[in-house]
Amino acid sequence: MASIFTRIIHGEIPCHKVGEDDRFLAFLDIGPLRDGHTLVVPKLEVDRFLDLPDDLLAGVMPFAKEVGARIQRVVPCDRIGLCVIGLEVPHAHLHLVPLDQMSDMDFTRPKLRRTAEELAALAQRIREA
Amino acid sequence: MASIFTRIIHGEIPCHKVGEDDRFLAFLDIGPLRDGHTLVVPKLEVDRFLDLPDDLLAGVMPFAKEVGARIQRVVPCDRIGLCVIGLEVPHAHLHLVPLDQMSDMDFTRPKLRRTAEELAALAQRIREA
Repeated sequence: MASIFTRIIHGEIPCHKVGEDDRFLAFLDIGPLRDGHTLVVPKLEVDRFLDLPDDLLAGVMPFAKEVGARIQRVVPCDRIGLCVIGLEVPHAHLHLVPLDQMSDMDFTRPKLRRTAEELAALAQRIREA
Repeated sequence: MASIFTRIIHGEIPCHKVGEDDRFLAFLDIGPLRDGHTLVVPKLEVDRFLDLPDDLLAGVMPFAKEVGARIQRVVPCDRIGLCVIGLEVPHAHLHLVPLDQMSDMDFTRPKLRRTAEELAALAQRIREA
């Protein structure tokens, strides 16, 4: 069965898109650690991030750099943190999280609650940044 | 002043090396979250990871894949987690952490204490894996 991310990539499930090219899609996490928390997902469905083919491994960070720069224009922060855990969805993905302190990247703490309207408005600002 | 990582790269401070090429050095974190916790550091000293030039951003994940595969041969785990936080040392670095559960990547929890001898022996096993 297709992963939830593949269904998002195919448009079967909506997302709050912030960036896309032929190989990657970036959209807001709906349970963010901080506002602007974004997932970068390769369109190729592979479970483990480091099992991705080399051309996608080589492409993901330059793609994340461009998306991260736009996030940071909208969500002021010291830097963009990056994290691959991947135990929950078996489709490789990279978290981009606005970072000012270590605890901003603590995935064990409660997620923020944001409405679909709030996420849509934020995604639009990041797309246009 | 050179960062502590630049001093390690130049051999002025010892490290438990597990991998190296012309652009990156990989060595064990001396305060590991789990045994096998490794830092991948570009030899070019740049503070923020996403400020690295594109050729290093493109090269870092293929390098991490090779190092991660060797770590996983020595430290059995579900997968290798990846994380860039970078608030402590102003020289871009990528954490590679053997991962079985979410809390393995919680940077707020106490680090393991390992002697220099234990780290040296583990680094040798990973180098030879």
